Amino acid sequence: MSRQFVTRVDQDVGPTQRAPVRSVRGDSVELRDDIVAVEEPLEIRIARCGETGPGTPVSVTMRTPGHDPELAMGFLHGEGLIRSKGDVACVRERGPDGNVVYVEFAAGVAFTAASLQRNFYATSSCGVCGKASLQAIDVMLHSGPVDSTLRVSAELLTSLAASAHAAQPLFRDTGGLHAATLFDAGGQLIASFEDVGRHNALDKLIGSMLLNDALPLSRCVLHLSGRASFELLQKAAVAGIPVVAAIGAPSSLAIEVAERTGILLVGFLRGDSFNIYAHGERLR
Amino acid sequence: MSRQFVTRVDQDVGPTQRAPVRSVRGDSVELRDDIVAVEEPLEIRIARCGETGPGTPVSVTMRTPGHDPELAMGFLHGEGLIRSKGDVACVRERGPDGNVVYVEFAAGVAFTAASLQRNFYATSSCGVCGKASLQAIDVMLHSGPVDSTLRVSAELLTSLAASAHAAQPLFRDTGGLHAATLFDAGGQLIASFEDVGRHNALDKLIGSMLLNDALPLSRCVLHLSGRASFELLQKAAVAGIPVVAAIGAPSSLAIEVAERTGILLVGFLRGDSFNIYAHGERLR
Repeated sequence: MSRQFVTRVDQDVGPTQRAPVRSVRGDSVELRDDIVAVEEPLEIRIARCGETGPGTPVSVTMRTPGHDPELAMGFLHGEGLIRSKGDVACVRERGPDGNVVYVEFAAGVAFTAASLQRNFYATSSCGVCGKASLQAIDVMLHSGPVDSTLRVSAELLTSLAASAHAAQPLFRDTGGLHAATLFDAGGQLIASFEDVGRHNALDKLIGSMLLNDALPLSRCVLHLSGRASFELLQKAAVAGIPVVAAIGAPSSLAIEVAERTGILLVGFLRGDSFNIYAHGERLR
Repeated sequence: MSRQFVTRVDQDVGPTQRAPVRSVRGDSVELRDDIVAVEEPLEIRIARCGETGPGTPVSVTMRTPGHDPELAMGFLHGEGLIRSKGDVACVRERGPDGNVVYVEFAAGVAFTAASLQRNFYATSSCGVCGKASLQAIDVMLHSGPVDSTLRVSAELLTSLAASAHAAQPLFRDTGGLHAATLFDAGGQLIASFEDVGRHNALDKLIGSMLLNDALPLSRCVLHLSGRASFELLQKAAVAGIPVVAAIGAPSSLAIEVAERTGILLVGFLRGDSFNIYAHGERLR
């Protein structure tokens, strides 16, 4: 008996929706339909795929609907609960409301609340915030370095923005979504995901690569549409990404993670300009 | 015996720090010091102020150091755990690392893990993500309407940006912080807080008003430096704020919260333009 690895359900909610809006400009007022990014909760549960029971909830995140199995895979990977597609038996979307994803671990892959090291739940924007203690954060900060010899040119970095932007149709419609975009070492776009939560966008991206058995991403460049936080760098490090280029500013802790894990961290990537915050030796 | 309500400790970490950076523009490379926003974890614990024990952790959030007692008060208020300053006996920063805040509830104010309705912890960016179930989110969505007759003019709304921006020195230095700024009904600035997490900025703002015994904020206007999410609107509603004006886009769920709670929600507030997403009847 064959069984689908990922069971998807036709969602009744898309990533954007129309909202009636009164648009004011000086003295003029225009009634029109605006397009807004959809934000809805998603619960990730560990459960047998064939069962209808509740399973064990591990996370609720506010996300933009779509690619929920990828989001779940990426989240569990970033938390260190799974390392590859082989650690998972199946992933199942529940429909039609679609706001729950069930993940069944493969035989022999342990899941305990303790293994999450949080008390918990997690979040759309700060997985580490669910850690049971500040000590757990210390542990994460001491995770191993990225295993990659990748070096890139300044020309490659400054070429990413146009491709990344072209891959973000929902942002163009709404102005309200974050994006995470992956490129290969030659600057060719591999995949791009958008979400109201920037951490969800990165989880979806890493989860999609995991479902393609493409981890670690040691020959890839990650482009971020906004600021670079601790957690985004942490997720990139766990996925083995050696180069992270953000349009916005990095935080102090993002720089620290990049330094410790060997990631070339670039910020304020705009036009032909950017700042190098860590591991500039990866720049040719 | 008198006891301080808020015990503060001189912090050894400020809200920004210098980072050596190589700044690339075309073919030129400049070595200089950049100023970056500090991001560090903060744990909120419920504990007797006089005790040295661990207390009960309720939240770890990635935040920018500074105004941690305000952050804790605002967080607990947004979670429905406290309603006023009178519900708290004292707040104590731990030093010198300063990454823990202890809150002692007043006699008779119950705190149980169950009362948090999360399993838990919370987050820098999505308090609701810690809710124990999607049902808990439903409950929050059905929270009561804001009790306010406040109406504002378009001129007042378009006048906010300049004052708000002037009150954001850290963003000017780093380009990496979110801000939440409160104005009175005449457009006069009351307070402004910045943080790497936009939810922290709003928690600090509401917490500071709570410490001033100024809740509910039924005659106030909230200005947000970025996008308007579900949780920001939820926090505003719990604090009784009738008008929320964001520079960025709102999400679908932010609009829903504003509609249900009677908040005038304005987005894309730029120059003399803005969009009205909910309760335009509050606009004169």
